[in-house]
Amino acid sequence: MKTNHKPAFAMFRRGRQNYIAIALLAAVAFTTTTIARAQDPLPSWNDGKTKQSITDFVAKVTKEGSADFVPANERIATFDNDVTLWCEQPMPVQLFFALDRVKTLAPQHPEWKTEEPFASLLKGDLKGALAGGEPAIAKIIVVTHAGMTTAEFEKIVTDWIATAKHPKFKQPFVACVYQPMIELLAYLRANGFKTFIVSGGGIEFMRPWADKVYGIPPEQVVGSSVKTQFEMRDGKPVLMRLPELNFIDDKAGKPVGINQHIGRRPIAAFGNSTGDQQMLEYTQGGRGARFMLLVLHDDAAREYAYGPAKELPETKGGIFTQALYDQAQKDGWTVVSMKDDWKQIFPFEK
Amino acid sequence: MKTNHKPAFAMFRRGRQNYIAIALLAAVAFTTTTIARAQDPLPSWNDGKTKQSITDFVAKVTKEGSADFVPANERIATFDNDVTLWCEQPMPVQLFFALDRVKTLAPQHPEWKTEEPFASLLKGDLKGALAGGEPAIAKIIVVTHAGMTTAEFEKIVTDWIATAKHPKFKQPFVACVYQPMIELLAYLRANGFKTFIVSGGGIEFMRPWADKVYGIPPEQVVGSSVKTQFEMRDGKPVLMRLPELNFIDDKAGKPVGINQHIGRRPIAAFGNSTGDQQMLEYTQGGRGARFMLLVLHDDAAREYAYGPAKELPETKGGIFTQALYDQAQKDGWTVVSMKDDWKQIFPFEK
Repeated sequence: MKTNHKPAFAMFRRGRQNYIAIALLAAVAFTTTTIARAQDPLPSWNDGKTKQSITDFVAKVTKEGSADFVPANERIATFDNDVTLWCEQPMPVQLFFALDRVKTLAPQHPEWKTEEPFASLLKGDLKGALAGGEPAIAKIIVVTHAGMTTAEFEKIVTDWIATAKHPKFKQPFVACVYQPMIELLAYLRANGFKTFIVSGGGIEFMRPWADKVYGIPPEQVVGSSVKTQFEMRDGKPVLMRLPELNFIDDKAGKPVGINQHIGRRPIAAFGNSTGDQQMLEYTQGGRGARFMLLVLHDDAAREYAYGPAKELPETKGGIFTQALYDQAQKDGWTVVSMKDDWKQIFPFEK
Repeated sequence: MKTNHKPAFAMFRRGRQNYIAIALLAAVAFTTTTIARAQDPLPSWNDGKTKQSITDFVAKVTKEGSADFVPANERIATFDNDVTLWCEQPMPVQLFFALDRVKTLAPQHPEWKTEEPFASLLKGDLKGALAGGEPAIAKIIVVTHAGMTTAEFEKIVTDWIATAKHPKFKQPFVACVYQPMIELLAYLRANGFKTFIVSGGGIEFMRPWADKVYGIPPEQVVGSSVKTQFEMRDGKPVLMRLPELNFIDDKAGKPVGINQHIGRRPIAAFGNSTGDQQMLEYTQGGRGARFMLLVLHDDAAREYAYGPAKELPETKGGIFTQALYDQAQKDGWTVVSMKDDWKQIFPFEK
């Protein structure tokens, strides 16, 4: 698969200024907020059982001499990304990215006018485009995520994320992160934890912005990936992204990805769905104090309510299944009700 | 492939005390040495061009305001392990491990008495065993490195490394590390670098001891791996090591492994052979100040002299080839002469 991406790149050369402005504003807001809320490291969490379960866990694993004490270098915490740290409704952000990218590349691919899923997509018929299921999505991913160097892809993502906005909230996607989870990440790090993302999303789709948005550097991001190949191009060493899947970091793949990248079993894990189930089980399976948490989206007014949230505990289906809810109850996992436990959902609310 | 490892485990339950004693002695020695040599962060390096190239590079990338300044979070340094950080002669330590493991497992495998490469191996005929080349080695690796959980393998490695000794130096393998490189790792970290191992060796063979020996935690070790699979065994979540190769972190695989694990291009890379060539090229290919170094084994008296070292620059062959030497000269990579540049080679010398 060879395509000339230069025209596409030219179209993406924008928005970096904006991005920096957003980052600076966020930094100022964060600093101000930090000073004002110095007393409480989790100001966006309502007091109650959920918040208490977090602070109790952190207190016991950090108390030297206690039976539950964990040395700092073993305080590994892993976080799912989509739906756990940022909003994935009405569809995954990476899919918005892929669809935008198809539109950008379309002028170079006249054949897409008659080729599915591109034909439907370019006509604005998303439902028709996705009717082809997994193979259709795979086709979209391949043309939008492969065939360029890793450095080129990083630039494409960086430029896109700087301007792309959430259709409902009219805010940049990177602003549609959950304020309580941002506080939780910072709180854990302040207590000696090393925080990792472990997501089914693309590892190189998250790395360009995860440090700025979550304080998680590239080497602490675990995700799905395509194969890459080392090449000399015009005498320069590059890594080419190949149209071939390397690893799917989801469900039973999450503990595999954790072991491969981190090489230690987490002592705390945070997710929201059956895609995170094995990560939480793997975390729980270690010796000593453990903490597992699921985020339940039950706030239709401020965000979305979906999965079993509408009528717990009877509803089946959804990715936060009834079985997962039951497992959480049985195994003592914390379940966050966004409606009841979170004072504020997004940073832009206040 | 299913085997019962319980008897084998019993045989490995020894030596942890020894290991702790060694670690403590090393810590005391290190502290004393550190105080005495407080003036010089690289006391085992002779003064001269080689040492100067290292300290010059570190000075310029850490000097705020300088054109070559690199923010701390981008100071990524990658180190090959075998031959760069510890001794790989007369053969790789991991092969010693595999051979010992075959002997340990032999009572459970009567069929090995007539099956190659095991038959030769068990008769002490190493040359005969390895005559089968790569397939023979692969067969040995599979039976010694797969078929157990990751936690079981970690324990096997930890127990073995605590007692196994180098045949020439009569010291534990973990003591046969290069003192100047240990100092270099610490010096880089003291200057804000994050140090990684990027080795063709097994990632899970190195992780159990890399933190104690090199100060490099499991999440900063990149290496070759077998596939693993998440399973529930007796109701406990485990990762099984499968008899199937996942990734070879060597040659053109090193930049791939670096990108996969670290997600940033190193600004400094350290190796010794054609197995490291692409890692050094990839490092050099980035923007700004870069540092590439190769260790040349040319000290037959204190360690070994091999590859082209005996009669540079004419000799061909060896893994430090003449072509690599020429490339190093042309591209300004630093070449360490162990004989001339290193005051001391092993920590146990003094």
